[in-house]
Amino acid sequence: MLIQLLENCSEEELEQIITQVSSLGYKPAPVKTQYGRYLICIGKAEFDIRTIGNMQGIRDIHIVADQSKLVSRLWKVHPTEIPVGDDMVISGNHFTLGMGPCSIESEEQVIQMIGFLKSNGVRLMRGGIFKPRSSPYSFRGLGIDGLKIFSAHCRANGIKIVTEVMQVSQIPEMHDYVDIFQVGTRNAQNYNLLDELGKVDKPVLLKRGMSSTLQEFLASAEYIFSNGNEKIILCERGIRGFEHAYRNILDLNAVPYLKEKSHLPVFVDPSHGVGIRRYVEPMALAGVMAGADGLLVEIHATPERAISDGDQSLNLAEASRFIRKVHDAVRFREALNA
Amino acid sequence: MLIQLLENCSEEELEQIITQVSSLGYKPAPVKTQYGRYLICIGKAEFDIRTIGNMQGIRDIHIVADQSKLVSRLWKVHPTEIPVGDDMVISGNHFTLGMGPCSIESEEQVIQMIGFLKSNGVRLMRGGIFKPRSSPYSFRGLGIDGLKIFSAHCRANGIKIVTEVMQVSQIPEMHDYVDIFQVGTRNAQNYNLLDELGKVDKPVLLKRGMSSTLQEFLASAEYIFSNGNEKIILCERGIRGFEHAYRNILDLNAVPYLKEKSHLPVFVDPSHGVGIRRYVEPMALAGVMAGADGLLVEIHATPERAISDGDQSLNLAEASRFIRKVHDAVRFREALNA
Amino acid sequence: MLIQLLENCSEEELEQIITQVSSLGYKPAPVKTQYGRYLICIGKAEFDIRTIGNMQGIRDIHIVADQSKLVSRLWKVHPTEIPVGDDMVISGNHFTLGMGPCSIESEEQVIQMIGFLKSNGVRLMRGGIFKPRSSPYSFRGLGIDGLKIFSAHCRANGIKIVTEVMQVSQIPEMHDYVDIFQVGTRNAQNYNLLDELGKVDKPVLLKRGMSSTLQEFLASAEYIFSNGNEKIILCERGIRGFEHAYRNILDLNAVPYLKEKSHLPVFVDPSHGVGIRRYVEPMALAGVMAGADGLLVEIHATPERAISDGDQSLNLAEASRFIRKVHDAVRFREALNA
Amino acid sequence: MLIQLLENCSEEELEQIITQVSSLGYKPAPVKTQYGRYLICIGKAEFDIRTIGNMQGIRDIHIVADQSKLVSRLWKVHPTEIPVGDDMVISGNHFTLGMGPCSIESEEQVIQMIGFLKSNGVRLMRGGIFKPRSSPYSFRGLGIDGLKIFSAHCRANGIKIVTEVMQVSQIPEMHDYVDIFQVGTRNAQNYNLLDELGKVDKPVLLKRGMSSTLQEFLASAEYIFSNGNEKIILCERGIRGFEHAYRNILDLNAVPYLKEKSHLPVFVDPSHGVGIRRYVEPMALAGVMAGADGLLVEIHATPERAISDGDQSLNLAEASRFIRKVHDAVRFREALNA
Repeated sequence: MLIQLLENCSEEELEQIITQVSSLGYKPAPVKTQYGRYLICIGKAEFDIRTIGNMQGIRDIHIVADQSKLVSRLWKVHPTEIPVGDDMVISGNHFTLGMGPCSIESEEQVIQMIGFLKSNGVRLMRGGIFKPRSSPYSFRGLGIDGLKIFSAHCRANGIKIVTEVMQVSQIPEMHDYVDIFQVGTRNAQNYNLLDELGKVDKPVLLKRGMSSTLQEFLASAEYIFSNGNEKIILCERGIRGFEHAYRNILDLNAVPYLKEKSHLPVFVDPSHGVGIRRYVEPMALAGVMAGADGLLVEIHATPERAISDGDQSLNLAEASRFIRKVHDAVRFREALNA
Repeated sequence: MLIQLLENCSEEELEQIITQVSSLGYKPAPVKTQYGRYLICIGKAEFDIRTIGNMQGIRDIHIVADQSKLVSRLWKVHPTEIPVGDDMVISGNHFTLGMGPCSIESEEQVIQMIGFLKSNGVRLMRGGIFKPRSSPYSFRGLGIDGLKIFSAHCRANGIKIVTEVMQVSQIPEMHDYVDIFQVGTRNAQNYNLLDELGKVDKPVLLKRGMSSTLQEFLASAEYIFSNGNEKIILCERGIRGFEHAYRNILDLNAVPYLKEKSHLPVFVDPSHGVGIRRYVEPMALAGVMAGADGLLVEIHATPERAISDGDQSLNLAEASRFIRKVHDAVRFREALNA
Repeated sequence: MLIQLLENCSEEELEQIITQVSSLGYKPAPVKTQYGRYLICIGKAEFDIRTIGNMQGIRDIHIVADQSKLVSRLWKVHPTEIPVGDDMVISGNHFTLGMGPCSIESEEQVIQMIGFLKSNGVRLMRGGIFKPRSSPYSFRGLGIDGLKIFSAHCRANGIKIVTEVMQVSQIPEMHDYVDIFQVGTRNAQNYNLLDELGKVDKPVLLKRGMSSTLQEFLASAEYIFSNGNEKIILCERGIRGFEHAYRNILDLNAVPYLKEKSHLPVFVDPSHGVGIRRYVEPMALAGVMAGADGLLVEIHATPERAISDGDQSLNLAEASRFIRKVHDAVRFREALNA
Repeated sequence: MLIQLLENCSEEELEQIITQVSSLGYKPAPVKTQYGRYLICIGKAEFDIRTIGNMQGIRDIHIVADQSKLVSRLWKVHPTEIPVGDDMVISGNHFTLGMGPCSIESEEQVIQMIGFLKSNGVRLMRGGIFKPRSSPYSFRGLGIDGLKIFSAHCRANGIKIVTEVMQVSQIPEMHDYVDIFQVGTRNAQNYNLLDELGKVDKPVLLKRGMSSTLQEFLASAEYIFSNGNEKIILCERGIRGFEHAYRNILDLNAVPYLKEKSHLPVFVDPSHGVGIRRYVEPMALAGVMAGADGLLVEIHATPERAISDGDQSLNLAEASRFIRKVHDAVRFREALNA
């Protein structure tokens, strides 16, 4: 059960509600976010809703049978709109294309990339500054100093930044320089990191763990939400399976599933999802038709010289064509479902 | 190495070529299909192609490094066109929609379904008459008598039939009543069945094994081709993995991969691929954008009363909308890539 | 529900029982095997057992909630004993070691192998005569003539044969020359083959499909049993997953699971299960401790020259040590559980 | 390439070696651990080893073709011995049994458990104080105060503690109260955590990620080692796959593989590996025979009332029998391989 509380619900009223639902056999957990106040009630009780329905301080009561409560569509049927700064919104009604290199490699690269994105109408740039690498001897990113340069150029050009945070201590360091915190697939169940990102008032793009079930994926989002941050974007990026002909298995089934079960926007990352440059475009277009609210795509001026993920990065000529096709596909989808 | 032989290559000339390639360290296997004659040469030799290039009886020589030779695009760059009877062609240039119930249940059903398909411009009907069921106590299909009725009505209405064959002894029984033999996912590596279907001059729609790698999938197609039948359609239908939120994991990555590696047409079966009725449409449209040459979709007049697979079957109202959307998507794709 | 019928239950009595259980909402399926008569009743009814409990012709009634009925341990608590000819029994009380080459390659090989097995006290020989190969150009086995020679030598030396049958038409051909029919992993859900093997009075060793769930595995065994053959041996041989450091993932969890859920004996095939020669011994011993009733192991006089599966075959020196260790482990296990 | 440096190698000598290997095309990374100094040289160069072989400061040079260098057995053929305090050693020659509850629930529980372990000769206790839970509303452990109590009782009784650390900030908090830091499956690729554990002089028990390949698993260990800590224990705990009849698929193939590829000790966790209480014993014994150097097993005085993982915990009577059997199996294994 999920109880929406009135904004002005007093501590005393909250106490009374907690006492009442506890007496009904529930374990209540109060949640306060940037947008509202909730009481999550875990338990298997079935009862006459009138016993709490008319208590002071309650805005609405929802029976939410799903394991994850706050991210469920059972209580919030309209898709969530996520503001990014003052001038960007991510949601089902505002398709978002995020592009950029796997790793930020240099200031020159940032400048060139921003030029490309601006002239192609792309307003969200991705780029790693802390890189999770399976070998300890690989390049681990430019770090916080790189981020500051990255950020300065983006701000000056009206471009938003999404970049991966890998540990709790990086959150305050990065906070003023990012627009969206990204949680990578290897940290999808790093609950301490999720807890802390729930205390920040910036959007979080949460990648699905490479072997996370969708229930686990939504539970990870619930961690963030229940700590106070409703601004969450889910991102399917390919799962692990027996087929090794490509880097991952892009599980597009997840898109209609997540859109139905949750009110959160759902992105697709075809670059990691297939991992082979020539297949990124068809898989991105497939993602759009499956219902994605946004795409995250790796591009690089010279993929063959990229420090990481060159095999799956589009070059700039490919990226231009790609952007046009994606926008056409989004428009086609809107017309089809009109 | 794959040697295309001239149609009029004499037995004597073939002998000489075999002797020559054997002396070069290859193991040669002659193949004769409805369309051509080939000599498949297995071996790791590298040699000066002039030593065989000018022999009598040879049309062309191709180095095919892929494990599967005849189905590879390394020797045949143009997509294969597969005639179905006199008046239908399956290929990259002729998108095909096949629809129908999981199981043929009755003559009434066949008549009703044909009426629906005709009025919606669908010319290929699917429908099981021998059903592979995981429990021996489940309905196993109407069998050959059902097929005869099914076939009579389809012929009378210009509808083609694709239906599953489960064992070698059914091939001659079914031959005169089907237009396309379907091999189901559980028989994807039933090599005896594949061998025998290679001796038939009817198209074979080969479903990917639920745990077949794409290399194994192409090898299964190679079995059919090397026995003499070039008319093969590959069909991605979902693979098995850890996620059990849906019936299978539709692996759309396979579509651009197979289109690139093979000259055979590639279908997608979103019904089995996701297994949940509400998600069939987005996954079908995603399949189109991934590059599919056709779709196989389960529909039923009353899905809630279907003997099998009701959960994943569209009803007729849904199916009408679906057909229109799929055709729109195919047109959109053509325009996008023009 | 599973009803054991009396051997002398008359047709009239059976009719009456069928009428009665049908009226209770069950769908009954009569089964006759070499050992007994059964009525499998599928349905969700709950009823007062007295309404059928005292009918003529009934030996016993069991509520079997498992999806697979006849192979379930819910009605038959004692492990099944499977006679192989007059002088061998396979069961939990008679550990069985089956060894031999992947493919039978020649008469000389058979003679040498039999010599080895006899002098090491191994009484069951494995060896493929029809080989399922993923490439159509690979060696496909010596075929039925090879089997006759193989069989003649084994008979003359008191060695039993287990070998793979790949299609229905091979069953009568092979029948007189094999002691145990093996169903390979690729045919684990070839239901027509399973049906026909249910009509034979020889044991069937059923390998788990490489992506079969255990429920599907037991359902495949149920196919054989429900067609009349109770002599079934289950064999875990490795499943498919994301780890490609070895050929398959030997799922030893399946052993205690299958032993608990079913009354059938359970074998382990460590050769395919790990696919790397050096790891076969530890995995075989692990299989014994997990509870296996037998092992199937590939050996070869000169693995490096084997036509197939040389990488996973023990040579004869290794095999001698291996046999001794396995017997020690079986004795240790007995002592431990005494 | 891995260069072992002399303990007294001067900074100047190190500089010269680095210059020399860099000029040969390698990227060198110096590593200093509690036991030695190394220079890891990444690159594909092949060269005449004499060009560096006689330089000052070098103890030995090893060509290590494996992706992970320091944890590889290619340079260190003898199994690593890991001291735990003054009076315990973990290694291939000292089989280790670690037992205890999933979560530490109370001081009473700790006292009772220690009593049980002491009287059964078990010297390593496991028990979670920070619990990673997929729902944010589940019990998350007693935290650091619980650890202090836990630790005090263990110290007083000569019992060592292994418990999970979930984030970098917990390392200094926990340091004085644990004997072995455990890294859980969800943090197996939390590289920041691994880096920091590399700077601590306490053993780290590293669980395999539920979808980590063995190459990724060894790379995670390499992170710890390359940061300075050689005291690493690998632990196979089950992987994720299509079979959901048990919690995980215990991949015992990993045991002989890891023992061959690495010099680190390998543990098995059958409790998580199968997740069903009745199967824990056979799978533990299987793990011993596969070659495990230790086991980690969940036990609980009243599993049916455990806060977490009760389904897979042995009760104390079962645990007593279990301990005896495991010791018998270890002795049997030693005799078998003597």
